[in-house]
Amino acid sequence: MSRAVIDTVLRLHAGRFVGDGVPLPDLEQLTREITNWERWFEAWTRVGDRYARLAAECEAEGATVSAGEFFWQASLFHHYGQFLWFHDPPVREKGQRRKVEMYNRAAPYLIPPAERLEIPNGPWRIPAFLRLPPGERPTPCVILLGGLESTKEESLLFENMCLRRGLATLAFDGPGQGEMFFQVRFRADFELFTSTVVDYLHTRPEIDAGRIGILGRSLGGHLAVRSAALERRLRACVAWGSLYDLRHWDSIPELTRRGFVYIAGLADPEEAREFYRTAVDLEGVAQRMRCPLYVLHGARDEVLPGDHVERLRAATARVDQTFVVMPEGNHCCHNLYPVVRPRMADWLASKLRS
Amino acid sequence: MSRAVIDTVLRLHAGRFVGDGVPLPDLEQLTREITNWERWFEAWTRVGDRYARLAAECEAEGATVSAGEFFWQASLFHHYGQFLWFHDPPVREKGQRRKVEMYNRAAPYLIPPAERLEIPNGPWRIPAFLRLPPGERPTPCVILLGGLESTKEESLLFENMCLRRGLATLAFDGPGQGEMFFQVRFRADFELFTSTVVDYLHTRPEIDAGRIGILGRSLGGHLAVRSAALERRLRACVAWGSLYDLRHWDSIPELTRRGFVYIAGLADPEEAREFYRTAVDLEGVAQRMRCPLYVLHGARDEVLPGDHVERLRAATARVDQTFVVMPEGNHCCHNLYPVVRPRMADWLASKLRS
Repeated sequence: MSRAVIDTVLRLHAGRFVGDGVPLPDLEQLTREITNWERWFEAWTRVGDRYARLAAECEAEGATVSAGEFFWQASLFHHYGQFLWFHDPPVREKGQRRKVEMYNRAAPYLIPPAERLEIPNGPWRIPAFLRLPPGERPTPCVILLGGLESTKEESLLFENMCLRRGLATLAFDGPGQGEMFFQVRFRADFELFTSTVVDYLHTRPEIDAGRIGILGRSLGGHLAVRSAALERRLRACVAWGSLYDLRHWDSIPELTRRGFVYIAGLADPEEAREFYRTAVDLEGVAQRMRCPLYVLHGARDEVLPGDHVERLRAATARVDQTFVVMPEGNHCCHNLYPVVRPRMADWLASKLRS
Repeated sequence: MSRAVIDTVLRLHAGRFVGDGVPLPDLEQLTREITNWERWFEAWTRVGDRYARLAAECEAEGATVSAGEFFWQASLFHHYGQFLWFHDPPVREKGQRRKVEMYNRAAPYLIPPAERLEIPNGPWRIPAFLRLPPGERPTPCVILLGGLESTKEESLLFENMCLRRGLATLAFDGPGQGEMFFQVRFRADFELFTSTVVDYLHTRPEIDAGRIGILGRSLGGHLAVRSAALERRLRACVAWGSLYDLRHWDSIPELTRRGFVYIAGLADPEEAREFYRTAVDLEGVAQRMRCPLYVLHGARDEVLPGDHVERLRAATARVDQTFVVMPEGNHCCHNLYPVVRPRMADWLASKLRS
């Protein structure tokens, strides 16, 4: 694998990197520097370590705002260093753990701070971060889901958009995601974990239990729809990217397929094709949706076919629907992040704060 | 003038554009699209108008957070459309006024809001924006200065860094800058305008009059040093870029020279060389500095020669000095914005909040 892989990754993800907080000068430097895919992990990790050192210096001198932001930056670089590194699990795991460590150090210094939670669920503990906006109590809350290789540490900037609009945020890793991968692999019944999180939010006096919504991105968009369809206490749902099922398995980019094999702990793509035929499928599920639904989709998505939008629209025809399909948008409209992201937060605020 | 001009402008300013808030996808689109310098104004203005329409839609539906951010985005594009358009004053003026209009519409919706002020000073009214952090009252405050073609509408993201650290911000246009250009051209005694602003801050009960600092960028760095040296009520000074004088007039990039001619309302570069020989000169001024000084400078600055740093260091040798010279930094270290900007805000907080 070589420069072609890097070009594909950048075409699919550059808007995501920057939209989620990677500073442009660092991305440009990495793009120039990494000429071979084999060097990706090491190069991103080195930048992450540089931010970590800077953060520690700031922390030592009491500059906690900078410490929080630089530890978060460090976390992002460790995240993107490993996010597609499915071919070498020990290295990927090292990057994951370093990312988690950095974000945990950032959490208390963020504005508002991120409270780290470990919510018991049977034999597992769901790792999560809760952030509360200033002002009104109890406050509505949005549950944020990552996708195939995105995790709770990646949503800070979107959380900030929610917080500025008076919405608390709870981001968690579900089965197969981030830290949770080490406890439990991806499962078809992701919604049970969402429901456990909703149970937990009901115990928090700062949260208005009647005004909890959910948003998920990419595979997380699918999981958000599934969760909202099966967990009736959710009052609003955003699918940031529309994945209805995985019938198009053979046309998915190879790195993405590897990711699906990895998160479910399967042996090979053949086994994965069979597993996901039922494990990722909204048929008969989406039809149960009752809460308002907002779907954002890019017409130029290379991963999610356009007919998924129409199938989801038809399956949820009875609910309060808003479908935003951007003609120029790529996967999850990452290339249009400055315009589309604030509007999802606006919609959530309009549904949960009215 | 052609593509070469554009490449120069991008080399000098790309980090500034993004660091000050231009979204990357828009910058990339403009970079691809503008092949001829003559199209610069029109292309940026068109993006600004698009954000303005989006902002107005958000405002109409009550999504005020998005309205504020999109009006601010619109303002930025109108700003950068005209910022170097010195050869065509009527067009530049149109862009300036549109920028101001957009920022004024954003101001009440920003978080925290920006209060528009027009501070009387003799026959003039100094346009300014004041923003107050949540929490502690009275609060310390940082006065922010633009430079040759930067104005009070350009500092929002740096203001946010100050605000997160518990510092109020007051950004104003002085003689020759932004809106103030239409009232009064650049003058040697810029510090009189700063002092008027300090007088005003003394009337505000929310502001701690004993804890007012100042920061300026590029030419503004020069003006900040001049102001702090001559206005003893300023308790901390940051020069974001070190310009000691304009003896290197003939080696300044041509567009920059044009800017100096323009802001002072002079006839030609010859007249300007003569005017600036005394109007921009810290000799005998910097030596009067008594407050702590922080200087950030890029060793690869193409506009400000490196010996200016050493002359400023020598002239202010008796004060509490922090000189940060970044070996890889370009003009104002714009290419290193993610790392250097938070540290200036940290320093200001350490001096004004202790």
